[in-house]
Amino acid sequence: MKGESRSSKTPPRSEEELLGLIAERIPGNGAEVLAGIGDDCAVIRPPGTSGMLLLLKTDALAEGIHYATGTPLSSVGWKALCRPISDVAAMGGIPRHALVTVGAPRSWSRADWKDLYDGIGKAARHHGVSVVGGETVRSRRDAFLSVALTGDVPKGSLRLRSGARPGDLICVTGKLGGSLESGRHLRFKPRCAEGQWLAARSAVTAMMDLSDGLGSDLPKLARASGCSYHVDLERLPRNRGCGLRGAISDGEDYELLLTLSPRGSGDLLRRWKKAFPSLPLTPVGRMIPGREASTRLLPGHDHLAPASRKR
Amino acid sequence: MKGESRSSKTPPRSEEELLGLIAERIPGNGAEVLAGIGDDCAVIRPPGTSGMLLLLKTDALAEGIHYATGTPLSSVGWKALCRPISDVAAMGGIPRHALVTVGAPRSWSRADWKDLYDGIGKAARHHGVSVVGGETVRSRRDAFLSVALTGDVPKGSLRLRSGARPGDLICVTGKLGGSLESGRHLRFKPRCAEGQWLAARSAVTAMMDLSDGLGSDLPKLARASGCSYHVDLERLPRNRGCGLRGAISDGEDYELLLTLSPRGSGDLLRRWKKAFPSLPLTPVGRMIPGREASTRLLPGHDHLAPASRKR
Repeated sequence: MKGESRSSKTPPRSEEELLGLIAERIPGNGAEVLAGIGDDCAVIRPPGTSGMLLLLKTDALAEGIHYATGTPLSSVGWKALCRPISDVAAMGGIPRHALVTVGAPRSWSRADWKDLYDGIGKAARHHGVSVVGGETVRSRRDAFLSVALTGDVPKGSLRLRSGARPGDLICVTGKLGGSLESGRHLRFKPRCAEGQWLAARSAVTAMMDLSDGLGSDLPKLARASGCSYHVDLERLPRNRGCGLRGAISDGEDYELLLTLSPRGSGDLLRRWKKAFPSLPLTPVGRMIPGREASTRLLPGHDHLAPASRKR
Repeated sequence: MKGESRSSKTPPRSEEELLGLIAERIPGNGAEVLAGIGDDCAVIRPPGTSGMLLLLKTDALAEGIHYATGTPLSSVGWKALCRPISDVAAMGGIPRHALVTVGAPRSWSRADWKDLYDGIGKAARHHGVSVVGGETVRSRRDAFLSVALTGDVPKGSLRLRSGARPGDLICVTGKLGGSLESGRHLRFKPRCAEGQWLAARSAVTAMMDLSDGLGSDLPKLARASGCSYHVDLERLPRNRGCGLRGAISDGEDYELLLTLSPRGSGDLLRRWKKAFPSLPLTPVGRMIPGREASTRLLPGHDHLAPASRKR
């Protein structure tokens, strides 16, 4: 099948093909792995008796791809740590311990290193994260950062992408779109308190963070949950100056996308307003039966995150 | 002091200066962090009651720096996972869960990805490691890999670099030197079984893995332990064709460096021969009182790992 297009000398055609190729080559997981490749974080049941599960996440930024050469390095440092924190938040977890790997060309000055670690340190302090290790290595030309982060989540609070059911209400926190244009992607605050609050409530059936944009992330949640979705595009909360297309596909919102069971949703939305009066939690649609396959939020819209292929 | 040499526009002069600059900028660790920056792995006391401690390690390889462009990617994959496994082994731990981040230019072919993950998968299977997540990202030019690895270690088995005392016998497993020249650095086997066996014995007071070479790693162990060392250079077990200088400073041996309390050393060395008949455990010197400051294994020899600055 498609033999001629599967030449070993050409790049994988899609994220799916690459993930398949990887999955074939790595061993299966043990029973202690409650979620592996495919959710915001890996989830591990630690040895011994503990009410907590261990979350593991890694996230990388490459110069020239994920940030432009010349971006203030303090912002790059902030973003590098806050991205995986957002993933831990989306599973209802508490971010805990980080290992920070920095690859930098030999030419990096003291000021460069200081700026970068000012941003990393600020993010760590703000979110109660301990930087317990890592590595600085030399790179030949471009810089890169890779942050590995652990988190704890109470067993009952764990929320995966796969828990949504037909009839569930789809909600998003905050407003969407325009993150790159406005520079918000360099200074966003992960929704940790909000994620923990939501995950402690049984009405929340599934949750993930919006990093690639609703148009790309909602299909992932639907696929993991084995159902489809209907979104009322007019209800999408948009950032000022941002059109519908931007709210769907700009990405890097770092808001929470979640689903609520029909029975508990009204009560939860009322309580939310008291707990987080300054941050909207907006119902934007419903999960519906059917396999999400080619459903797209906008006709003809095929969101492909160009830079980052997440697992 | 040296004001003129501390310009913010020039690179840090040394690893120490860079580490100091980083440490000033990141928040202090909580009480659950038993070892942070400075040992082979970070050590965390997990929440709840468990006889196990959590080890965290990250390790990166950059193309053109840590491996030559053109190195078989299956070997690069093997090495990328085995390096942090060696760090877990050196703390007496059991390697458990890995997150693998790969940054690769768009030009990487299916064969490239397959080769890389063949090597990663082989190493994972060989050491019972589950690859539970990670990320593939695009890089502009050079490839990089960053592996984050967890490990478990029974509380009583944890061995740090800091446990050596004057009078302790210094030992190394295997033979040293010539790793890069011979290609051993691409196919070495981390000393997991040996590390666990050693760490379960009370005679072992300190342990680390030999990644930068004895001439660089022994001073680190001594510094962490607050003492100095004397090495009988003639006793160093050397690989065939490898001179004394190579055995001290080639690096990438991935053998274990450990210290034994004087009382228990004889018994342990006898038991070792029965447990691991094909792998020598060689006494090479003794820890002595005094602060290790400028002691060098060879006069005039100043080992600086040029590519990798580990924390």
